[in-house]
Amino acid sequence: METLQLGVLGSGNGSNLQAILDVIAACKLEAKVACVISDVADAFILERAREAGVPAFHVDCGPSKSKLEKDAEQRAISILQEHGADTVALAGFMRIIKPDLLRAFPQRVLNIHPSLLPSFPGLRAWEQALNYGVRHSGCTVHFVDEGMDTGPIILQRTVLVHDRDTPDTLHKRIQSQEHIAYIEALRLLARGRIKIEGRRVLRTND
Amino acid sequence: METLQLGVLGSGNGSNLQAILDVIAACKLEAKVACVISDVADAFILERAREAGVPAFHVDCGPSKSKLEKDAEQRAISILQEHGADTVALAGFMRIIKPDLLRAFPQRVLNIHPSLLPSFPGLRAWEQALNYGVRHSGCTVHFVDEGMDTGPIILQRTVLVHDRDTPDTLHKRIQSQEHIAYIEALRLLARGRIKIEGRRVLRTND
Repeated sequence: METLQLGVLGSGNGSNLQAILDVIAACKLEAKVACVISDVADAFILERAREAGVPAFHVDCGPSKSKLEKDAEQRAISILQEHGADTVALAGFMRIIKPDLLRAFPQRVLNIHPSLLPSFPGLRAWEQALNYGVRHSGCTVHFVDEGMDTGPIILQRTVLVHDRDTPDTLHKRIQSQEHIAYIEALRLLARGRIKIEGRRVLRTND
Repeated sequence: METLQLGVLGSGNGSNLQAILDVIAACKLEAKVACVISDVADAFILERAREAGVPAFHVDCGPSKSKLEKDAEQRAISILQEHGADTVALAGFMRIIKPDLLRAFPQRVLNIHPSLLPSFPGLRAWEQALNYGVRHSGCTVHFVDEGMDTGPIILQRTVLVHDRDTPDTLHKRIQSQEHIAYIEALRLLARGRIKIEGRRVLRTND
């Protein structure tokens, strides 16, 4: 069992960060949030971090909205390393992670995506799912690789899609499962309970 | 409430046909199997049909393994119409259905696919799912359109993927859900409980 030193990257509200902070505070996850980084200066995720006494940083990523520029990436890596992060958890981080960061934390960068991947990668996955007409959607925690939402899957949780769902109601229902899923995945990682075999992430002592 | 007159098309074992026949025999589905058609002369699905006293036909589809030739398609349409079929249920039929047949039975051709579409369309979907490393798979009943496994989804059922699964064990677990799903979808259709809105299939009186 190890205490994960988490670096959390997010661009928005940070509800997954909050779920992680709450469960750590309740001593139900062997982890510490070492630092939080956002590409958005006024993202609420930074506020949540400061509120919890966690070092919080805005990294200016320049004019592109989806790319992480080289300088910004190096700055993020430095902050993560200076704060002793051994695991990077993306929590609504809206930029594609590049190879340098992945190499700095091999098989230690996690993401959560609001669909049952490989269905509906990319933006507003809950809306894609609703428009496609699936009856089940959900969320996926996966290791990050160089593709978009393509890395090995650690776990998934499903939710029913209702006839009356709007993008917003479906998104909310998926988010409540995201919190459970992310914590469960981090717990498996902290307890050394998973191993990667090719694309499959298997449970050890299982 | 209507009694569905089903024409069932299959290429193999016909376990979904058997599930449908059994539930009709138990008076739990307002349907009758009007005829069964296979592109494979010695497919067991034809044997199952004959065993149940259902007219069974082999339609020779020529040398291609995946296409339904024009003549064969016309022959299939004729058989379906002569036997009073109003609904066509594909049950392991390994050829792509063409526009003429779809036009003869508008919004009345159903298929069942062994994955949570849109993930893993095409052949051996259970194996694709296992190799990709998803933690949940399942099956999808959908209306057939001119694409491959792309039509509006009527319902889906999920199954867990286990670490120890082989393609065969996962396939079997999905198949047992297929039988439930197909019958449920046909029951919704027989009871006029569904309406198609764009890509979404909604429940009426819901």
